[in-house]
Amino acid sequence: MSLTRVHNFSLSLDGFGTGEGLSRDAPFGHAGERLHEWMFATRWWHRMTGRPGGTRGLDDVFVRQFTPGIGAEIMGAGKFGPPGWHEDPQWKGWWGPNPPFHTPTFVLTHHPRPSIEMEGGTTFHFLDASPAEALEAAREAAGDQDVRIGGGATVIRDFIAAGLIDHLHVVVVPILLGRGVRLWDGLEGLEKNYEVEAISSPSGVTHLTLTRMVL
Amino acid sequence: MSLTRVHNFSLSLDGFGTGEGLSRDAPFGHAGERLHEWMFATRWWHRMTGRPGGTRGLDDVFVRQFTPGIGAEIMGAGKFGPPGWHEDPQWKGWWGPNPPFHTPTFVLTHHPRPSIEMEGGTTFHFLDASPAEALEAAREAAGDQDVRIGGGATVIRDFIAAGLIDHLHVVVVPILLGRGVRLWDGLEGLEKNYEVEAISSPSGVTHLTLTRMVL
Repeated sequence: MSLTRVHNFSLSLDGFGTGEGLSRDAPFGHAGERLHEWMFATRWWHRMTGRPGGTRGLDDVFVRQFTPGIGAEIMGAGKFGPPGWHEDPQWKGWWGPNPPFHTPTFVLTHHPRPSIEMEGGTTFHFLDASPAEALEAAREAAGDQDVRIGGGATVIRDFIAAGLIDHLHVVVVPILLGRGVRLWDGLEGLEKNYEVEAISSPSGVTHLTLTRMVL
Repeated sequence: MSLTRVHNFSLSLDGFGTGEGLSRDAPFGHAGERLHEWMFATRWWHRMTGRPGGTRGLDDVFVRQFTPGIGAEIMGAGKFGPPGWHEDPQWKGWWGPNPPFHTPTFVLTHHPRPSIEMEGGTTFHFLDASPAEALEAAREAAGDQDVRIGGGATVIRDFIAAGLIDHLHVVVVPILLGRGVRLWDGLEGLEKNYEVEAISSPSGVTHLTLTRMVL
């Protein structure tokens, strides 16, 4: 059974998954890189960016769940590029010629364009579709592997609300952003359908996992 | 130096300190007792309610910080009673003849009334005052001891925004209330003035402490 998983999605203490004022120079708006510093410190990230060292503890263990068993990703338009990217025919995402996805990657957008094949196994497909329709396409592309929902907050919330998330890993970072896009809005009672675990890391972040209960 | 402290203030994962629909029969509205079950399981709570047993681990260690060194409490009108309590001249709080405060306790209200002396050292005083004014009165009553800010969420937020909180202990409970009163609204950048620590408990809650940095 192919599962739908979210990994390494960072939230501020006050529940924002990204800041305000997103732009080409500020992909996370006024949040800057503060939501992701815990990740940059891990050995996994150091390796991926060609550097030695990095932590090998709890944060690294969690962050490494990103890749294994994943056969496709679905992301929102707001993750693929800054506001207005669809007006730039040359825009191919933030990640350079070899993006870190290495699978078919479905971008939800009201402005579909032809697929783009990148290096390293990532192919971007553009879909104007509901969460359920996008998941059907991604599952077919993933074979018997799992589908990762890559964010941002709005897309993850939409997939949760549609009952389509099996495993959700959220990383609560001890900062207060005050404004931006909230993850948890409108999800009252979600815990009834999930096993929830929280574990604090010496780095200061707290890893939350919500795993759907099998009925 | 007398400090201003918050202890055992419970929040849902989505940041609500209480639910919606507060009434005499539902002091926390639709949240019910779910925000405080972690506390009811502790030995401290069992002792206070005359029962044997109770947990002796992390939750109990934290919950016991409530009393020592505290010389006065300040609470909001919404903690003292249900909406409209000021129209009931007999209302003396939720806690029976011997409330758990055992110190002078200042209730912020736009409808002040004469002070009420209870058993066990609690005297309720009613003040129509700003956070700073209330703190001045409470400090005088507390002598050289600390002042506890007892909640609810709005009052704690007002004291934080006024720069009047030295130590804040928040307990994040893994439920999504969806609606109610949020603690963290409008506090962008708060972490710059506080040392923040998070530690998850085997019970499922996560204890957060924010301690003001001495400059």
